[in-house]
Amino acid sequence: MNAQPKPVAELGFNTATKGVYPIAATPFNPDQSVDWDSLDRLTDFYEASGATGITILGILGEAGKLDPEESREIAARVIRRTRLPIVVGVSNPSFTAMGRLAKESMDLGAAGVMIAGHAALRSDEQIAAHFRSAVDAIGPDTPWALQDYPLTLSVVLSVPMIARIMTEHPSCVMLKAEDWPQLEKLSTIRSWQKDGKMPAFSILTANGGLFLDFEPERGSDGAMTGYAFPDALVEMDALHRRGERDAAHDLFDAHLPMIRMEQQAGVGLAVRKYLLMRRGAIACDIQRKPGTALTAQGRSEIDYLLERLARKDARARL
Amino acid sequence: MNAQPKPVAELGFNTATKGVYPIAATPFNPDQSVDWDSLDRLTDFYEASGATGITILGILGEAGKLDPEESREIAARVIRRTRLPIVVGVSNPSFTAMGRLAKESMDLGAAGVMIAGHAALRSDEQIAAHFRSAVDAIGPDTPWALQDYPLTLSVVLSVPMIARIMTEHPSCVMLKAEDWPQLEKLSTIRSWQKDGKMPAFSILTANGGLFLDFEPERGSDGAMTGYAFPDALVEMDALHRRGERDAAHDLFDAHLPMIRMEQQAGVGLAVRKYLLMRRGAIACDIQRKPGTALTAQGRSEIDYLLERLARKDARARL
Amino acid sequence: MNAQPKPVAELGFNTATKGVYPIAATPFNPDQSVDWDSLDRLTDFYEASGATGITILGILGEAGKLDPEESREIAARVIRRTRLPIVVGVSNPSFTAMGRLAKESMDLGAAGVMIAGHAALRSDEQIAAHFRSAVDAIGPDTPWALQDYPLTLSVVLSVPMIARIMTEHPSCVMLKAEDWPQLEKLSTIRSWQKDGKMPAFSILTANGGLFLDFEPERGSDGAMTGYAFPDALVEMDALHRRGERDAAHDLFDAHLPMIRMEQQAGVGLAVRKYLLMRRGAIACDIQRKPGTALTAQGRSEIDYLLERLARKDARARL
Amino acid sequence: MNAQPKPVAELGFNTATKGVYPIAATPFNPDQSVDWDSLDRLTDFYEASGATGITILGILGEAGKLDPEESREIAARVIRRTRLPIVVGVSNPSFTAMGRLAKESMDLGAAGVMIAGHAALRSDEQIAAHFRSAVDAIGPDTPWALQDYPLTLSVVLSVPMIARIMTEHPSCVMLKAEDWPQLEKLSTIRSWQKDGKMPAFSILTANGGLFLDFEPERGSDGAMTGYAFPDALVEMDALHRRGERDAAHDLFDAHLPMIRMEQQAGVGLAVRKYLLMRRGAIACDIQRKPGTALTAQGRSEIDYLLERLARKDARARL
Repeated sequence: MNAQPKPVAELGFNTATKGVYPIAATPFNPDQSVDWDSLDRLTDFYEASGATGITILGILGEAGKLDPEESREIAARVIRRTRLPIVVGVSNPSFTAMGRLAKESMDLGAAGVMIAGHAALRSDEQIAAHFRSAVDAIGPDTPWALQDYPLTLSVVLSVPMIARIMTEHPSCVMLKAEDWPQLEKLSTIRSWQKDGKMPAFSILTANGGLFLDFEPERGSDGAMTGYAFPDALVEMDALHRRGERDAAHDLFDAHLPMIRMEQQAGVGLAVRKYLLMRRGAIACDIQRKPGTALTAQGRSEIDYLLERLARKDARARL
Repeated sequence: MNAQPKPVAELGFNTATKGVYPIAATPFNPDQSVDWDSLDRLTDFYEASGATGITILGILGEAGKLDPEESREIAARVIRRTRLPIVVGVSNPSFTAMGRLAKESMDLGAAGVMIAGHAALRSDEQIAAHFRSAVDAIGPDTPWALQDYPLTLSVVLSVPMIARIMTEHPSCVMLKAEDWPQLEKLSTIRSWQKDGKMPAFSILTANGGLFLDFEPERGSDGAMTGYAFPDALVEMDALHRRGERDAAHDLFDAHLPMIRMEQQAGVGLAVRKYLLMRRGAIACDIQRKPGTALTAQGRSEIDYLLERLARKDARARL
Repeated sequence: MNAQPKPVAELGFNTATKGVYPIAATPFNPDQSVDWDSLDRLTDFYEASGATGITILGILGEAGKLDPEESREIAARVIRRTRLPIVVGVSNPSFTAMGRLAKESMDLGAAGVMIAGHAALRSDEQIAAHFRSAVDAIGPDTPWALQDYPLTLSVVLSVPMIARIMTEHPSCVMLKAEDWPQLEKLSTIRSWQKDGKMPAFSILTANGGLFLDFEPERGSDGAMTGYAFPDALVEMDALHRRGERDAAHDLFDAHLPMIRMEQQAGVGLAVRKYLLMRRGAIACDIQRKPGTALTAQGRSEIDYLLERLARKDARARL
Repeated sequence: MNAQPKPVAELGFNTATKGVYPIAATPFNPDQSVDWDSLDRLTDFYEASGATGITILGILGEAGKLDPEESREIAARVIRRTRLPIVVGVSNPSFTAMGRLAKESMDLGAAGVMIAGHAALRSDEQIAAHFRSAVDAIGPDTPWALQDYPLTLSVVLSVPMIARIMTEHPSCVMLKAEDWPQLEKLSTIRSWQKDGKMPAFSILTANGGLFLDFEPERGSDGAMTGYAFPDALVEMDALHRRGERDAAHDLFDAHLPMIRMEQQAGVGLAVRKYLLMRRGAIACDIQRKPGTALTAQGRSEIDYLLERLARKDARARL
């Protein structure tokens, strides 16, 4: 049950975008340099999964550990490699650096960028000022996704705050929704949009996919997350759209034990890269320093979960 | 496959404790007063689940919203009601209040108390000072459990820090282990104990049970968490102890979709109380203000998960 | 140049309140019990300083270390002792406890209460909900002061947020303004009030008095802070009101080296209590545990600053 | 009473360094580009102040808003311009970037670098790991200063933690001490060093100079801070070394009202740049976006304080 290539008409990065945007890992060689061959292979892997687009240089893409030159070259290489729209994470403590990577990425052919807040933003006024500075830095015509991920970013976006950002910035076309909890918030956002209290935008959910069984019924348009089985996410998404609720839950429940392992802080990325390596998408599961590695027992736990998953989903037969 | 009453010899709260300590909810009436009848029923429910003991007045017991008099009366009532050992959460910004509730609880017959740190504790020196003040307040002979729950408490306990606390305070008999991630940390703690780098103590894991399928193999002695199916936790624990790994995982996987819903911030307690109500353990799922309530759609999602769970576990046929 | 008793007409706790409200220390005996005699003496000391009112049970009153019974008794004793209006700090993680102390205090004859937020409040929506719960707990007719002290409380109140709270809650009659920086914020608040964007309220500044030389020109109505020379604060306030700018700065500059010592985190309270003891207002400078004590060198530094101050202000000749 | 050029023998960046290291501002043109002429003038200004060395690219040097190329060029230009030893702030979320700037700076002739922790470091283990990664990145032979500034950095370094870092990393030659409070901590560190519990290192204090009147008696070797009157800091330092306590306090007290204005969060840098502009050290007081500007009233307050200061210190007659 492999995913089929999407017709070009379905691809895109705009307020109507639906589907799955994997958050791409960044593959490294054992000597800590970027593994360019694996990057190509990984790009192909995401495209073959049936994804709608790919998000690169996010937190789990280890963007914060890259040189500006590396970031630009990764963006260039992925954009050249695939026909899928590419969204580039450009969050940076320096708005100068943010604007620079955004401009370079758009010039290279990116579909848009992704921007998050940070822990020092406390009041709604500070948050509003941050995103005004960000849009100032990337330019008002660059489409962007707003990341709502308080667990890791420590910035809390209420529904009125999201409405304010979305109203102030028509170039924000998408919400990467990964609050915790998220379900009721999805319903509230969709209700506010229906009532004209905020503009329309696409909502892709994340949190590693941990609530992907209910999010579409709450109003999400798909997923933007890095789970190492993007093809399974694409299938879940399709089942939901066809209204096959039980089947969607069956597939989700089969993957949930693994999804949960990937969603751990720190070691979650080690799990993800190990799975991508086991699936042949990258050559090596190493992280750039400072990173977390799976121990032998950690790997054996993942192997065991893979075996259990393989009984229900052939994609896990490795 | 209901749990059997434990022989008294297996009960206890000490460095050798094994099994399941449910974290008790506190039932309220619609008028916000404590629902004493439900408290009795809930105590019986936990005892009937096969639990080793019960922990009351924890965070999810809404302890912070109770008057000192209510806290004392709840402790008195639960202790009188059950033959199980009772551990009382006594964390409080005031060490005076902490010491008072600890003393009252021990006088009433509690088996021990539970203590956490708080967000203002940053350096290891500050953490060490906090637990010295706490032991000073509760007295050096009161057995206690150390709560390691950074996600909610924002206090980070490294393995050397845990070793330091446990070495300084022989009255600390148990670690309530709910770091995130927790698995490798369990292995490290057990390895340090084996090497004589810290004393022996019981480790019960929590995090709502989200990693309970692997924790016993990493060295945990059981669980101390509030999942609304403590009887299922008791069964998982028994399966693990008998080495029935696959069966333990099967049971865990069946419950994981629900466990995850309960483990959400804020609304998780609403899910838990709703399930306890559906199971007949309490009359009403209301929280004392300020609390979070499930919407109609939220309830229907839990009902749907219950139906799915019921196909695999008869306890969910309500 | 000692302060004169205020005519009753000038006393009060309402939106027009002007003058100085000392934040009262809580005196303890060496055995950690409340020193009731010193509490009387301290109350008299504040009244004799020319204060407009007194705020008790604030953070620096070590309120978090008191039993509910002690808090109530302190409130009762101070209220009975003085003709000055008394504001009672009632901030508490439990709204039940907050409401109880507020009701007891008002029944005893308090003029109002003071309420702060806490570190877990991140978005403006969370802050708004917190103060709604607080007003729900204390009752809509209890006058209260809003504490804006991000450095210690970690809750950030923007000017629009203050406008929202003040508009929603007519019972909030005063802002205890101690943001950092605070000067421009004072001007902005007064400008918003002038433009009808928020209602009128009294603003007393704090931050230990560290910016008291400019705050009145920015729109403050006085000070609510615990500096051990409240009589000097009263005189500065009077000089400002009479437009004697240079004289106000001269007096302020003389005290600034000491003000800065008191404004330190942790040890600042030890400085304050030591000065109150040296001035004869309390018998002993001990803090309830856990507290910070001045070392011998720390005391000698304060003594040296006192000597230097005494050359310019006779109040420091002890 | 202008400062005299230091003989070369007194200059240096090592465990025996004494004196004043100004934290350099970074001057910008109104179009947001770096103002290279002002950078030269500012470098000359610091050298003429009698400073022992200069620290560039710190937090108040707006380092986080600079491109890597700009940072390198600033370092190159300042190093070429002055005979003073230059310490380069290299803190960066990316250890790759940190290592790169450190290597480039040392190759250009810097005397050493400065490194801070960040808010995500909670336990002592995490802090230790951070500085191990940092030393790994900059190389074990690069001399560095450890920044202890919890108020802004939110990382708390206890005395035992400082001992651990200093013991593990002999290349750490200096502590930039700006904890709050700091006085007792200085005494404790010096006492630990005397007892052989940690190695010798230089301690320069900061916090804008707010406690510079007592810090030398507590064991500091001088100051590393950005106050716009570095020549006054140099004089205070000399008075302290000559044992002229009263004169040192007189000079300090004269400057304290201004020091306090500069030490404010956010707007403090605007005050500092305004003063540097008034003193002719830079052409324009603008900050790179996002920055804080002084209002007209804010400037007039500083002007008023300058007039008052000028009565006591001729350096303020502008």
